[in-house]
Amino acid sequence: MMILNNISDMRKIVDQWKKQGLTVGLVPTMGFLHEGHESLIKRAAAENDRVVVSIFVNPIQFGKNEDFSVYPRNIERDSSICQRAGAHAVFNPAADEMYLDGFSTYIDVGDISKELCGKSRPIHFRGVCTVVAKLFNIVKPDRAYFGQKDAQQAAIIHKLIKDLNMDVELVVCPIVRESDGLAKSSRNVYLNPEERKAAPVLHRALCAGESLISSGQKDAEAVKKAIADVINTEPLAKIDYVDVVAFPEIKPVNGDISGKTLVATAVFIGKTRLIDNFIVG
Amino acid sequence: MMILNNISDMRKIVDQWKKQGLTVGLVPTMGFLHEGHESLIKRAAAENDRVVVSIFVNPIQFGKNEDFSVYPRNIERDSSICQRAGAHAVFNPAADEMYLDGFSTYIDVGDISKELCGKSRPIHFRGVCTVVAKLFNIVKPDRAYFGQKDAQQAAIIHKLIKDLNMDVELVVCPIVRESDGLAKSSRNVYLNPEERKAAPVLHRALCAGESLISSGQKDAEAVKKAIADVINTEPLAKIDYVDVVAFPEIKPVNGDISGKTLVATAVFIGKTRLIDNFIVG
Repeated sequence: MMILNNISDMRKIVDQWKKQGLTVGLVPTMGFLHEGHESLIKRAAAENDRVVVSIFVNPIQFGKNEDFSVYPRNIERDSSICQRAGAHAVFNPAADEMYLDGFSTYIDVGDISKELCGKSRPIHFRGVCTVVAKLFNIVKPDRAYFGQKDAQQAAIIHKLIKDLNMDVELVVCPIVRESDGLAKSSRNVYLNPEERKAAPVLHRALCAGESLISSGQKDAEAVKKAIADVINTEPLAKIDYVDVVAFPEIKPVNGDISGKTLVATAVFIGKTRLIDNFIVG
Repeated sequence: MMILNNISDMRKIVDQWKKQGLTVGLVPTMGFLHEGHESLIKRAAAENDRVVVSIFVNPIQFGKNEDFSVYPRNIERDSSICQRAGAHAVFNPAADEMYLDGFSTYIDVGDISKELCGKSRPIHFRGVCTVVAKLFNIVKPDRAYFGQKDAQQAAIIHKLIKDLNMDVELVVCPIVRESDGLAKSSRNVYLNPEERKAAPVLHRALCAGESLISSGQKDAEAVKKAIADVINTEPLAKIDYVDVVAFPEIKPVNGDISGKTLVATAVFIGKTRLIDNFIVG
């Protein structure tokens, strides 16, 4: 497995592969890999001749008061996870390799990026779309792999690909969880032991919401209230949002749930913001 | 030569060419082709194995009160010009093929798009960047050909390619002129005989500015004034701007001209807005 730090080297490798007629899968990550990422890499390795994992903590998707500078990093550990999971190359550029002096070009997908996480993170998805377009232009993947844990992100990448006619197939993979239900996330490392014990409340609350829907409840407000009620039993939890939206359009559901629907929540456990979701229909 | 109206057909052809290892040149146009476009197509044919000319009057780069609906169109004539000049395919999609229902994704290159034409056409370059990215994603050209007549556009595409790591070489070709100096433009057809007689004033004025610089004048204000003075001798002409900016940064030059510099003007002749420019240094 190769580790590449600059764009021209990455491009050369991919161009060689393409000339040989090999298919390429890309798994874009911010590193500090966990079993969720690993499942994406394994899926990519099963479906493509070559797999590139990008590891890049993307500065332009973090707000001023967010955790860019302290976001966990461990390239050695990440590399061995990538190799074990079947990657052929890790693309790990520095920030000034990706953003040259004077960089000022951004991609905005519109309203879909303003709901859910977009409400409290106004520049986040603009940064995500921009870096994903850059990675697609560098790696030229046939398929790109994203996790359902970031369901709004997946919906936004779907729209980005469609609106800009990118020739990439989006593959969205299931959420991977700890044994107590907490969705795997690089940010789980921020949790102290007490917070870690509290964190599965997101999943427990969403399960309660899902059961309610299964048992016939269609009213979005009732589902949201049931989920919030469970979260609010946890003193360390502070809700950012509990929301019900059409998927992948990410349009708020007012009234009855029908068709493919995303039920998503973002909750602060102490200072750590965690997200989780499920999709019905 | 093929004429293709839909994206998937265009993609199939290009993918076949790529598999054969052929290079592809793209000439993006809005049609109603003239000798300026023809020079781009000929250059592309000389430098690439295959040439695609896109003909698409792009609605999202026109402002509400601009000439989208009346912009001249003649696909039959355009096709024969393309064939004669050496194109292998014309890509001529309908607007609803390029912009599906719910389209909402735009690329903005920042300050460079706010000077010169960007001042009076605030959404223009956002629309240009977005459609060019779409065309690049569909046609996957090795090289793309643009005319220097739209010098700010060329600078913006240069920035778009650089900032988003697009794997495309930009080729900028010289302005082609009528025998009286008027820069070739699809919009020249709007001019009535009297206006047509007045229109070469842009070129005459720019030549006066260029002579002044050649003779040692470095002050940007003095050059702008000299150009404006010539344009203002023409009663049918109304200046939108005369400007001096660093190229390709498109940053206003205050004080002395040094380094690569674009001197550009936009002038209404009657209701028709014409542009022209020269580059020094």
